[in-house]
Amino acid sequence: MNQAFAEYLAACRQRADLALDRFSKQIHSEYSGHKDDSLSRRLYEAMRYSLLNGGKRVRPTLVYASAEALDPGCSELALDHIAASVECLHSYSLVHDDLPAMDDDDLRRGQPTCHRAYDEATAILAGDALHTLAFELLADCPGLESSQRISLVKALAAASGARGMVGGQFIDLSLEHHQPAIELLQTMHSLKTGALIRAALRMGGIAANANGEQLQALDRYGNFIGLAFQVKDDLLDIEGSTEVLGKQQGSDINNSKMTYPGLLGQGGSRDLLEQLLQEALMAVAVFGDKAERLRQLGGYIISRNY
Amino acid sequence: MNQAFAEYLAACRQRADLALDRFSKQIHSEYSGHKDDSLSRRLYEAMRYSLLNGGKRVRPTLVYASAEALDPGCSELALDHIAASVECLHSYSLVHDDLPAMDDDDLRRGQPTCHRAYDEATAILAGDALHTLAFELLADCPGLESSQRISLVKALAAASGARGMVGGQFIDLSLEHHQPAIELLQTMHSLKTGALIRAALRMGGIAANANGEQLQALDRYGNFIGLAFQVKDDLLDIEGSTEVLGKQQGSDINNSKMTYPGLLGQGGSRDLLEQLLQEALMAVAVFGDKAERLRQLGGYIISRNY
Repeated sequence: MNQAFAEYLAACRQRADLALDRFSKQIHSEYSGHKDDSLSRRLYEAMRYSLLNGGKRVRPTLVYASAEALDPGCSELALDHIAASVECLHSYSLVHDDLPAMDDDDLRRGQPTCHRAYDEATAILAGDALHTLAFELLADCPGLESSQRISLVKALAAASGARGMVGGQFIDLSLEHHQPAIELLQTMHSLKTGALIRAALRMGGIAANANGEQLQALDRYGNFIGLAFQVKDDLLDIEGSTEVLGKQQGSDINNSKMTYPGLLGQGGSRDLLEQLLQEALMAVAVFGDKAERLRQLGGYIISRNY
Repeated sequence: MNQAFAEYLAACRQRADLALDRFSKQIHSEYSGHKDDSLSRRLYEAMRYSLLNGGKRVRPTLVYASAEALDPGCSELALDHIAASVECLHSYSLVHDDLPAMDDDDLRRGQPTCHRAYDEATAILAGDALHTLAFELLADCPGLESSQRISLVKALAAASGARGMVGGQFIDLSLEHHQPAIELLQTMHSLKTGALIRAALRMGGIAANANGEQLQALDRYGNFIGLAFQVKDDLLDIEGSTEVLGKQQGSDINNSKMTYPGLLGQGGSRDLLEQLLQEALMAVAVFGDKAERLRQLGGYIISRNY
């Protein structure tokens, strides 16, 4: 990874962290007008604990980079709202996925999961509140037309509900200890992880006034890098180190999860990654030079070590 | 209750039931284009099980009645979207509140709760999907300006997140086995139940182009009937029959929950109910004759037997 791109990634991450910090403080201070601030403080703490725990901020970065691939024009603050919204949605899904009744995970990014650090009821409610906050941030998005804001709400809702992320998580749970075909693995990931990645790109595009053809190009790019993201995750589970990953290395194998390396082997999975990257690069060729960040992000996704 | 009003209530309820049935089928059939329909069918079943289990549809009725208090003008289908959205939000909150880590309830409206009928993971995800669907229904609301739809999203989000319903539920859990002052009980209910009731009224108003003063009148009315709704619920827990309520009579006492009859006595609670109704009637006087349904609803809320 070249130095300039490393700095870009760090800047996007920092920008998203600042936005998340600011917006989550804001709703707390709005609430604090209430006299019983102390009682719900723990709820806000659990929300912020889950939100600000050092994520890579891949989805916010995709929002920024897709707007950049077009004529940005839109306000920086609008992009921050969108980036924070997508990350709130992602964060809520992690909090709920980690629950004992779901994946029952103790660690997330090297820290105790929300229900371990707090308790199960608090984790359910903190997830619910982050879920709502994601939509509130879009409705309040400054500097955009109402019609754009509605398109953003639609894009996020379609990607994250029963036809998207939640549907994918449900299929994933249903498949545990099964060995389904690769098409099914692909459908599941396309919903569980891919849908929100595609939404992040589309939402950056909506803010930057993308036309239908441009949104389609972003969708295609999102399809390929979404899948690549998952294949790489599966490879890292085998090849990565527990310390760098922030979660137990080898946990997929221990949980008999169906993975790409399990189906295609490590070599086959690496070939697939390379092929997906080429497809992704072709998809954004229409944007010319402005797609440079999207191209670099594709390369980063298949070469990252955590 | 006079015959005409009883018929109005039944008609609103049927109208909401039909809308919920149609919209929840619609997202399933949109999804069914996917090849792996069978895998997520259970998720849709759990959503519909929770949504279509014979609720009173108080919140949808408030949406219809508040639009009627203004010059309706807006499309009937728009009101159905809004009514269904508020009920999806309410339904998700019940599914999550019933979970073992929260209130741990086995029965809801006389039927096994979602996590009993299905399982805990399915209930968490069905709740999450209903939560998202609530916002999707608003974004897709036909016949309204984008700016109105954005106002609807804002109203629902503000009422249901950490500053509203979820915050109230969190305070409620924190108070278990405590005996806080009546002001705190009031704050908790104003968030947990009141916020969504106020939102339902406000959202009907937004669809019918209410001005700021009219929205404030609806808010005031919502404050009083929201509180009355809760006082009546507490009274029913003592005075009602398990069979009619569809849940265990006396469960508040058994769970050492703080209630209005516990704080004010049954007589004091009935006096409070009467006083709240008078305040609610005054709040909607500005709407003149058109507020007839809202007035009748106030009377219904304090006299219902389940």
